Parts: sequence; structure tokens; C-alpha cells
Amino acid sequence: MAVYTDVSDEALAAFLADYAIGELVSFRGIAEGVENSNFQLRTTQGDFILTLYEKRVNVQELPWFLGLMQHLATEGVTCPQPVADKTGETLKILAGRPAAITTFLPGVWPRKVRGSHCRPLGQALAQLHLAGRSYAPVRHNSLGPAAWVPLLNSCRSGANTVLAGLEAELDAAFAHILPHWPGREQNPELPRGQIHADLFPDNVFFLHDTVSGLIDFYFACTDFLAYDIAICLNAWCFEEDGAFNVTFARQLLLGYQDVRALTDAELAALPVLARGAAMRFLLTRLYDWINTPADALVTPKNPLDYLKRLRFHLATESVDGYGL
Amino acid sequence: MAVYTDVSDEALAAFLADYAIGELVSFRGIAEGVENSNFQLRTTQGDFILTLYEKRVNVQELPWFLGLMQHLATEGVTCPQPVADKTGETLKILAGRPAAITTFLPGVWPRKVRGSHCRPLGQALAQLHLAGRSYAPVRHNSLGPAAWVPLLNSCRSGANTVLAGLEAELDAAFAHILPHWPGREQNPELPRGQIHADLFPDNVFFLHDTVSGLIDFYFACTDFLAYDIAICLNAWCFEEDGAFNVTFARQLLLGYQDVRALTDAELAALPVLARGAAMRFLLTRLYDWINTPADALVTPKNPLDYLKRLRFHLATESVDGYGL
Repeated sequence: MAVYTDVSDEALAAFLADYAIGELVSFRGIAEGVENSNFQLRTTQGDFILTLYEKRVNVQELPWFLGLMQHLATEGVTCPQPVADKTGETLKILAGRPAAITTFLPGVWPRKVRGSHCRPLGQALAQLHLAGRSYAPVRHNSLGPAAWVPLLNSCRSGANTVLAGLEAELDAAFAHILPHWPGREQNPELPRGQIHADLFPDNVFFLHDTVSGLIDFYFACTDFLAYDIAICLNAWCFEEDGAFNVTFARQLLLGYQDVRALTDAELAALPVLARGAAMRFLLTRLYDWINTPADALVTPKNPLDYLKRLRFHLATESVDGYGL
Repeated sequence: MAVYTDVSDEALAAFLADYAIGELVSFRGIAEGVENSNFQLRTTQGDFILTLYEKRVNVQELPWFLGLMQHLATEGVTCPQPVADKTGETLKILAGRPAAITTFLPGVWPRKVRGSHCRPLGQALAQLHLAGRSYAPVRHNSLGPAAWVPLLNSCRSGANTVLAGLEAELDAAFAHILPHWPGREQNPELPRGQIHADLFPDNVFFLHDTVSGLIDFYFACTDFLAYDIAICLNAWCFEEDGAFNVTFARQLLLGYQDVRALTDAELAALPVLARGAAMRFLLTRLYDWINTPADALVTPKNPLDYLKRLRFHLATESVDGYGL
């Protein structure tokens, strides 16, 4: 569920008075999403999403995220567009939280991924990367490799209660990831740029097997473009039982290359990037699993789903394993 | 949060193919509500609500609820109207659950009750009662007085862990409620009919201080009409600190009587009905408080809010205490 903060009708009315978007018609909390509070807002002028940013979002970074969404939209990416108030502000305060109104996107996120989703997904991801090239501000990936060992350190005492031997297995996996991680220096063969970094199925809307919108840019950052593909390989290409679906992966990579050709260096780096992506989601889920209070609104996700993925990528030596 | 069961896009597409309501445009879980899974569904023909009925709802009773909503709508009450599929069915199966599509209602439920809400609320409640008179089927109130002692019995071991002395206090309160509860025989002075039985603020939509819709009829039943008022006195007329707001209560009762005059017997019965209503919500919240697993999606509500209300009503001797 994703309503951590509720909004009184008086506060909402005062907030909306700052905007020229018509009269309030309807206002309902949205169940999806786990980081922020989201509401579907209807006015006499149309539909919007109201987001209250909760504690995990750094308020100083919000202008970067909103600026990116604005930029991507002008470049033709269908993503939520921040709506400015009468004074031109897109980031405001409501119910004591940073808040923004964005445009509403049609579409339905796929509860069950099918092969037919993966090529359009790859295309949309590559379009996002191309559109991001002209957005100059940089946001460091705060959940990149430098964050992983500290994250594991903060969970060590709990890791083995989740699965016996997990701590040692993750330590061993680091040896196959960190020394092989691409350097941060500018490398035209391994281009960096604005990545979504959380493009899970619930952040991609489809209509008739066409991508109708990408949402939730609040993990976006400046990193290897191919790392975004590695995240999608993890998020889209495994069955519920943990088996890798090589057909889905192939479609994803073909779709990406319909729009932007991958360099040899990017293709070669995919296995290590995919290991890193599995590690990143495993660790944040492990942290949440151990640290979520029993009465929390959001049920934490099982970190072990990502251990299966990590093991798969550790055993994958080259891009052949991903169907190319 | 109120999405216990998610719906695959394939299942949704197959389900919608049974209806003549256009093509799917958008589908999002709704955060509000605690009993069922609700989704805001948009098609090319408009907006709808899709409800999957979860385990607390007795599937055999669903036709009664849907029939009541249909009936009330034809009588001019703005409430969700079940949408029939191409074969005329309103109750179907989706994702293994009974499911229904209903019409979407505009409006916003009041996060903070103001005095200006209470008179329109009373009027809407009386209109609901008048509209229900011509709906003949009877549904026994399964959370009526006969259910209360068994409910307490099922929580006795936990009651005193919530508050020392709670068990004895509730037993003592029963002595001021059950012997004074009106008899079930037909009594024109204390009319029975279709009541909502759960008309809390989140089930009443307002637009510009006018009631724009009533929702969530899945506790509705055939009982004393004045008991519905007693529930609203509990749900709408107490401040967050537990203090009774007599102005709100007076507005509620005046609003009700704008539409339907209360008999002397109803006015006289209000204190005991209000005690019973407080007891009913206290007991179900106590039960949920004790029995909700730590990893549940819904955070249980504190039962002690209703102990304060119960104490107030036990000390209230006549309708004067409610501002009339």
C-alpha cells in the first residue's frame, strides 16, 4: 500500500488553490508503490497523480528527479510530467511533506510478464537512455557498488537467520562482482547516462502490448546505461519459480538494440552488471526484511528471490547466456 | 490498503471481454478500504470500480448487497451501481474470487469531519432509509447484539492485555445495553429497515459540502433505522482526542429530521443504540487487534478509541446529550 500520509480535505483544497488545474472532483489513495504516498486526483480538467515524498526520498534531490521527468517528456518519453502551480513551482509542501502533482498516464502494468512485453520494454528503455543524453545534471547512484558492502555489514547479524550460510555466500559473491566492476572513468565503449534504475513491471504501463508510459523515477541516477538493462534482466526475465527465461531476455536485448546498438564492451559487461543488479536488490530487500517493523504498512519482499537470480548470473559467463 | 488479491492482465482482459463497457485504459489498486480488494478501472467508456470480495464476505449474501445498491440507485440514492455483463450477470468470478464491477462516484471523503458535513450526512442517511423501504429482502445483522457476547468471549484472554480491567468493564457495560435493547418484534414506533451499518467518513463522498455518494454497502442489513444514526454518532461526532462534539451530533440529527422525522421511541432509544454501536465497533476492533498477524496488509485500528465512546454513551441518559 502506498498511503503513508493522508491529506485533510482542507489542506488539499488550499493546495489545489495554488494551481490552475480546475476544481477537485475525486481523490483516492493508490495501492501500488512502496516508497511514497500516491493519490489519483481528478479535477474538472482531467486526471493527475499527487505524490507526497516520504522519508526515504532526499528532498534536495527532488528537483533533479522532477527535472529529469520534465526533460524526458519534452524528448518524447511518455512519463509523468510535473505540473507547475500558478507561480511556476512544481515542488511544494503538503501535509508536512514535499509534494508534487504530475500528469496521469493511461495503461496497465503487467501482473504477469509475457514474452510480448519484453521487446517493447527494451525499446522503451533505449528511448529513455537516448532522451536522457541531453539532461546534463548528474545524480550519483546512491545504491551503486560502493553501497553494497556497507549494506551487507548493516545486515550481517540477520542474514543467516534468513538463510543459513547467506552471509558467507554473499561475501563470496562480492569477489566475483566488485573487482570486475567497470571503472567510473568516462569510457565511450561503456557509456554512462541517466538510467531509471528501478524499471520493474509495476513501473511500466502497457496498452495493447505497447508501452504507454514509464513511471516512478525516484531511483533514477547517472550510471552505466547497460546497468539499467541488467536491472531489467533481473526484474523481467525470471519465472516465479526462479527459472531464467532466456526468450524474454533475448526479446529485451533485441528490443533495446532496435533503438540503440550495444557496444561490445556493454555486451561483455552484462554478466557482471547483472550480478551487481541482483546483489543490489537482494541487499535492499534483505535490509527491509530484517528491519521492517511487524506493524508496517508494506510487507517486505523476500530477498531470497534475488539470491536465485544472483546464482544464475554468477554462473553466466557471457552475453550468450542472455540469448544473444 | 485494499488489494489482497491481484489480477493478472490476461485474467482481466478475459473478464472485461464479458462486458460491453469498452476497452481497458487504466487499472490501479485503491488504497482505501479494509475488507475487499478494490481497483479503479478506466475503459474507453468511462470509470468503474472493480471489487474482488475477500474472505470476510459471504458469497451467498452478495446478491442481497448488489440488489440493495441497484435498488437504492433506482430510488435516487447516489451509490455504486452494479454493472451487468453481456448476459445480465452482475456477480462473477475473477482470480478465484467473487467479483463485481460498479459505477465510479465522484467526490472526496472527509479526512477531517467538519460541522458542515454533518447535516448533509444526516439528510443522506434518512434518504437512504426511505429509499430502502421498498427493498423487501431481509438480511439479518450478523454483527448485532446477539454476536457481541460471543465476540467478547473469543477475545477474553487478550482483552486485559490491551487495557487492564477491560474485560470486566465490558461485562459491566453489557448490563446497561443488552437488557435495554429494543425487541425485534415489529414496532411502528421503532421502525426497522435497510441500514448501511458502516457509514464512516471514508464511505461518504462530498463535493462542495454536498454528499456526492455513499459507498461500501457490505455491512448493510435489516435493523432499526435509528441504529444507523447511532453508528454515525459514533463515527462522525467525536474529536480525535475522544471528546464528543455535540454540535456535530445536533447537525446530524437535524439533517436526518429534515428528511424523516424521528419518533419519540427512536429519540428515547438513541442512548442505548449508541452504546450498542460503540460496543460493536469496539469488539470487532478488539478482535482484529488481538488476531491480526504481524505481517498483515492492514494495520488494525485501536479498539480503545471506542471504549471512550462507550463510556460517553453510558453516561448519556437521553437524546438531550446528543444536542436535541
